[in-house]
Amino acid sequence: MMYWQEEIETMNRSDLEELQLKRLKKTIESAKNSSHYGKLFSELNITSENIHSLDDLRKIPFTTKDDLRNCYPFGMASIPLKDCVRIHSSSGTTGNPTVVLHSKKDLDEWANQVARCMYMVGLRDTDVFQNTSGYGMFTGGLGFQYGAEKLGALTVPAAAGNTKRQIKFITDFGTTCLHIIPSYATRLAEVFYELGIDPRKETKLKTICIGAEPHSEEQRKRIEQLLGVKAYNCFGMSEMNGPGVAFECTEQNGLHIWEDYVIVEIIDPVTLEPVPDGTIGELVLTTINREAMPLFRYRTRDLTRIIPGTCPCGRTHKRLDRFKGRSDDMIILKGVNIFPIQIEKILMNFKELANNYLITIETVGNSDEMQVEVEISDLFTDDYSTLQKLSKNITHQLKDELLITPRLKLVAKGSLPVQEGKAIRVRDLRKF
Amino acid sequence: MMYWQEEIETMNRSDLEELQLKRLKKTIESAKNSSHYGKLFSELNITSENIHSLDDLRKIPFTTKDDLRNCYPFGMASIPLKDCVRIHSSSGTTGNPTVVLHSKKDLDEWANQVARCMYMVGLRDTDVFQNTSGYGMFTGGLGFQYGAEKLGALTVPAAAGNTKRQIKFITDFGTTCLHIIPSYATRLAEVFYELGIDPRKETKLKTICIGAEPHSEEQRKRIEQLLGVKAYNCFGMSEMNGPGVAFECTEQNGLHIWEDYVIVEIIDPVTLEPVPDGTIGELVLTTINREAMPLFRYRTRDLTRIIPGTCPCGRTHKRLDRFKGRSDDMIILKGVNIFPIQIEKILMNFKELANNYLITIETVGNSDEMQVEVEISDLFTDDYSTLQKLSKNITHQLKDELLITPRLKLVAKGSLPVQEGKAIRVRDLRKF
Repeated sequence: MMYWQEEIETMNRSDLEELQLKRLKKTIESAKNSSHYGKLFSELNITSENIHSLDDLRKIPFTTKDDLRNCYPFGMASIPLKDCVRIHSSSGTTGNPTVVLHSKKDLDEWANQVARCMYMVGLRDTDVFQNTSGYGMFTGGLGFQYGAEKLGALTVPAAAGNTKRQIKFITDFGTTCLHIIPSYATRLAEVFYELGIDPRKETKLKTICIGAEPHSEEQRKRIEQLLGVKAYNCFGMSEMNGPGVAFECTEQNGLHIWEDYVIVEIIDPVTLEPVPDGTIGELVLTTINREAMPLFRYRTRDLTRIIPGTCPCGRTHKRLDRFKGRSDDMIILKGVNIFPIQIEKILMNFKELANNYLITIETVGNSDEMQVEVEISDLFTDDYSTLQKLSKNITHQLKDELLITPRLKLVAKGSLPVQEGKAIRVRDLRKF
Repeated sequence: MMYWQEEIETMNRSDLEELQLKRLKKTIESAKNSSHYGKLFSELNITSENIHSLDDLRKIPFTTKDDLRNCYPFGMASIPLKDCVRIHSSSGTTGNPTVVLHSKKDLDEWANQVARCMYMVGLRDTDVFQNTSGYGMFTGGLGFQYGAEKLGALTVPAAAGNTKRQIKFITDFGTTCLHIIPSYATRLAEVFYELGIDPRKETKLKTICIGAEPHSEEQRKRIEQLLGVKAYNCFGMSEMNGPGVAFECTEQNGLHIWEDYVIVEIIDPVTLEPVPDGTIGELVLTTINREAMPLFRYRTRDLTRIIPGTCPCGRTHKRLDRFKGRSDDMIILKGVNIFPIQIEKILMNFKELANNYLITIETVGNSDEMQVEVEISDLFTDDYSTLQKLSKNITHQLKDELLITPRLKLVAKGSLPVQEGKAIRVRDLRKF
């Protein structure tokens, strides 16, 4: 058996879209019971009868994180609270927390989504799955726990922390699969080698599910080599339950997003219009298989694109590309959408450059201009003509990527401001 | 509906014992597949056919924590590992860890046990249940989570720590029930009052499940008054799954132990013979409804007694009294079993005494004698005749409780050794 649910996973697109439409209508019916959507749908005269095609979804306004906050705690519930069996709440470090409610059926469907993902990367009931996530409110804990149990794997609910204990569990219980964040996977490998244990030879590890933290293809490869495993990218967010929304298959080329659970849109975060497949934009999701708290056209703020074409694995559900950052980071310059990560990607390709850079946008005369300052590496030359050649080369590549030409300034190492915590990469000094 | 499972909970004793026998035989059959019991049963010729009555259970030797350790990790498994879906492991701070394995059915039965307990104290699907336990390997987390979801309550998986956040959840989500350890319940109440919130009036709290930590009736009453709740004592141990083994009903007079899940014995920890109902001894449990890892006659080391008589709640399952300590703490003197807690209980009744005391057993001539030293309170008199009168009174009460007469020594406050960490209360200097 190649698939957890072959019929669903390999369903032809027209049947899948028909299923989506049916579920969308049903979801609209039940969402009328929530105080938020009830009011909205009645104002806009949205009923399941008015939705004739998936395109009609666009009659419904977007839902944002602010909507969720304004509905705190239970304004989004579409069923009575007595029929809900779990709350997951964000920490609410900035503003009101957001809350997601689940019915028994919702938890079972969520577990099914996760089991489907795990099965897709080759895990079976003979596997031993160790979860290094925190539990409690963090959805990576209970989400993977229920999914792995549904799959029938032997679960080791190790929870976060205590690396030596994690390693004891891995070796003693014959753990074959870990759920782990990428930075911790690297740390785990280090401790393995410190203890004189070669995880590639002296454990049964073969698969790891990495998520919750952005990471590059290079980082994935490094983790795979250190631990002797295949590492699969997983995407989840608590507003969409948690883990299991999208997951790589063994092709490791894009994350299948389960379209029997969500309707996917990719929009231009400025015009809010759909972008064609292959173009980067903001991921917008509509739940069509959740009863306690459906969300319509939820703006995830995550930037990605649909990978065009079909996947050799046979699954027909669309593939999301590796995430490109957050739409909040987007810069609009001369009508062009620019993401800092596009600039970073180019700069990081030059060995001559150090890690620190700063993007400044300012109004010069009647025009808005971009300046990119980047530190050069300690070991690099101070020969003027070499520097000029380098500068030209970088500028050329930036122009190719961004479609505008920034002013590039190579500066000495240590001359850009150093920030504590998350680096500030963009200064916008424009006069609006 | 008064009961979660009326037929089982109020089953007449003879039917219940018939059910136990049937399940015991079935469990013996399946345990033959474990390497531990397989060997043992074959050596002792124990088969389900040889078990004709519940008394025949005594043909099977006790299982101890050391047996569990020696079987680490999977020597107790009675089903193939691929049919197990969860491992709970102790931390193994002293020696090898112990491991308990669960099948899907086991997890479902465990959830049912917990749901039955929660229903018994009045919780329903309209309740909001907040779990302040740690999750992961600690069974109080996932154990209560699954049980409360099975009950249909709205669960708030808060996990341990962050008291202000716990309080925000309690107030925002309308939490009606907490699972909490007694010392943390007191702390929680303090923080409520520090924040100017009266938990008795400004929350919906009405029920708390307290366990995992020994506590007195006075402590329970105090918690009930501070939080404006009813507090119910719960008993669980990871070897017996975790929470849900025994739980108080609304009578608050003993913990019903679910005899369709376990067979209860109370034994004298020295002679290992059964003691009559009402007599304190060591609790010994046999699982009769667990398939992945049955345990026969497991010596829990916990001291308690069966409360004689029937319970007004109508449940026929036996009631365990509040736990009296650990059998490892027992002193045998002149053929009498004495538990330090019996002495402490008497001493703590005297306001004239401070908290520190020390019990010394030594051989004097041909006889073993007990000396009890206890500090007197700072504020108390040093008048000789008053002290003598007090001493007489305490000695008299100790004799009544212990049936032997210890030598009592009242000492000045601060004169007994002070220990870091867990206090050492007993010095045994006997020559054996």
